[in-house]
Amino acid sequence: MKPLEGLKVLDLTRVLAGPFCGMVLADLGADVFKVESPKGDDARGNGPFANGESTYFMSLNRGKRSIILDFKNEKHKKVFLDMVKQADVLIENYRPGTMEKLELGYENVLKKVNPRLIYCAISGFGQTGPYRTRAAYDIIVQAMSGIMSVTGAKGGEPTRIGSSIGDITAGLYGVISIEAAMAAREKTGKGQYIDIGMLDCLVSVLENAIVRYFSTGVSPAPLGNRHPVATPFDAFNTKKGKVVIGIQNNSLWERFCKVIDAEDLFKDERFKDNALRTDNVDALKELLEEKLAVKTSDEWIVPLLEAGIPCGPINDMEAVINDPQIVARKMIIELKGHPIAGDMKFAGNPINFSETKCVVEKPAPALGQHTEEILAAFGIAEADYK
Amino acid sequence: MKPLEGLKVLDLTRVLAGPFCGMVLADLGADVFKVESPKGDDARGNGPFANGESTYFMSLNRGKRSIILDFKNEKHKKVFLDMVKQADVLIENYRPGTMEKLELGYENVLKKVNPRLIYCAISGFGQTGPYRTRAAYDIIVQAMSGIMSVTGAKGGEPTRIGSSIGDITAGLYGVISIEAAMAAREKTGKGQYIDIGMLDCLVSVLENAIVRYFSTGVSPAPLGNRHPVATPFDAFNTKKGKVVIGIQNNSLWERFCKVIDAEDLFKDERFKDNALRTDNVDALKELLEEKLAVKTSDEWIVPLLEAGIPCGPINDMEAVINDPQIVARKMIIELKGHPIAGDMKFAGNPINFSETKCVVEKPAPALGQHTEEILAAFGIAEADYK
Repeated sequence: MKPLEGLKVLDLTRVLAGPFCGMVLADLGADVFKVESPKGDDARGNGPFANGESTYFMSLNRGKRSIILDFKNEKHKKVFLDMVKQADVLIENYRPGTMEKLELGYENVLKKVNPRLIYCAISGFGQTGPYRTRAAYDIIVQAMSGIMSVTGAKGGEPTRIGSSIGDITAGLYGVISIEAAMAAREKTGKGQYIDIGMLDCLVSVLENAIVRYFSTGVSPAPLGNRHPVATPFDAFNTKKGKVVIGIQNNSLWERFCKVIDAEDLFKDERFKDNALRTDNVDALKELLEEKLAVKTSDEWIVPLLEAGIPCGPINDMEAVINDPQIVARKMIIELKGHPIAGDMKFAGNPINFSETKCVVEKPAPALGQHTEEILAAFGIAEADYK
Repeated sequence: MKPLEGLKVLDLTRVLAGPFCGMVLADLGADVFKVESPKGDDARGNGPFANGESTYFMSLNRGKRSIILDFKNEKHKKVFLDMVKQADVLIENYRPGTMEKLELGYENVLKKVNPRLIYCAISGFGQTGPYRTRAAYDIIVQAMSGIMSVTGAKGGEPTRIGSSIGDITAGLYGVISIEAAMAAREKTGKGQYIDIGMLDCLVSVLENAIVRYFSTGVSPAPLGNRHPVATPFDAFNTKKGKVVIGIQNNSLWERFCKVIDAEDLFKDERFKDNALRTDNVDALKELLEEKLAVKTSDEWIVPLLEAGIPCGPINDMEAVINDPQIVARKMIIELKGHPIAGDMKFAGNPINFSETKCVVEKPAPALGQHTEEILAAFGIAEADYK
């Protein structure tokens, strides 16, 4: 048994934040029905493609089944309301107001059809406030949240995170809020409306930058890869490649100096304790990189780990996929049997349960692949659809 | 009523990933008991400080109550087991094996004391695999996950994200898994063990970089702020400050060119469609920045938004905190009455429920502040503790 087995989720979402939310629910065992317009989720147009199928889409919609519903078609709208009647959860990430325009708003329609429904709306800026109707992409929310302002080379430009964490963080908070609403429903018997904004979610993730601002009155700036108050705690060049090293106290500093043959630095008054090392961080980095230049990154990591120094390589995606830990943790999974794209590899599910195991097995659906099967599952006659 | 009201959580966590998980549970209404050693959570030593109290700690532990338990003291161990008997959830982020060394392992001890207990272990690399005993800090997991390899200036160095998202993503997956295990327990009556690794969680967030690698055979590299396949979709310099703009189709491109007085670029054959604009991205950026140089970022955003062009400023933390949307969404909260630090401001809770509202009210605890109160809540005599 999977933990969310039996949970019926209507997934009306497109592109990224919403689909990621639905995917995690599917990974946890929920039955996720991807409700798509006749054109399909916009992400089906995003490359790269495998036999013409979007790998972008397939990565975010595994384990779901797809039904085509055209909300301009009154028959389909009725089918949809029949599905809502039997559903536990609905997720959408339209711009605020869209469901109301379709006459499918929560307050006036869906709640009346099914008071147990948990309705989760994910949007760029949330359902309230002056920006609520603005379009948001990940880069815009990253920029406006402040996360770009603290990311980048020291003294350099604000930098976008190379993964769409504006969307994904909102997707994760979506799952958290839906499950919490399920726990509340166990007690009250009632569903409710959930409003998640991508901008809010990124601000919550910036908790430390915010307290630093309030403590100092100064907005934190990009620091490169180094730690603001622990030294050495940074990425360093070696003979070949880089190594990240994290040292937070003097006993680790002593051991580290022994391993890299830097007794002179250990005795140096400028580097005697963490505060002094942080004051003299630039000089120290230069001297450490001289010491580290005699071996490659891989050659350093072995003796550093043996001495208990927290360290690691900076992996590219090829190295990640082949990393023995990632392989042992089964974090790259192969999903077999997509009707068009065939067998494909994806990032796996990072949640490991002892009892309710969650092996991901089903690939993403082709557009409308399960329309008849889903109608049957909801006891809706095909004549009511066609 | 809050959604997780009545849920008893023992929070044995330190520093960041685990405390963030416990904080979200507390925000959702759980009763979170922070179990601290006599020295307290290591994060209590992290600056900046307010009246000697760590703002770093206070940002991650709001709404919790603190009890001091010394696991080397047999009386305290017995108190702890009494608490486990009555708890719903336990969270810890020790290195794997630590709880077993304390003779408080899940399988041999805690599960027997309370079969309904949901036990969530968060660690750097997870409880299995060759790296399981390695120490991990956020920077090490960011480096090894590949997220640094896709973040940074174009052609530049791999860059750490300026927020500890290696920790925070694991904290969010911790909440998701605990709530899912609660749903399973509603059916089975049994708790279980959950194993969350920070490295796994960041790999899951890199889903798109992974499919791109498998599709092309090439590891994605830092791209700066621009979108890999949509153009213009980037951060641009203006007369003063930068603006991020996201344009994904030709009708937006046409409207954009009108607003910025760039009919010549709209007619230019090199920029006729998205594919051509992406091929000629460097030339286009230079020409666009010439056009944008006549006004400031703030002056551009008004007419761009009026024309429906997705855009926004790159905010620093000061701008974020004062942003009208962030203010309207109450994403900066003031928590009053910390016994030592007084009133303080923090990032708020991004989850908005229509029924089970979650206003955050209680500040973080001072070390051991609620020891007596917690003993009483669990019906444990003070004589059994002292």
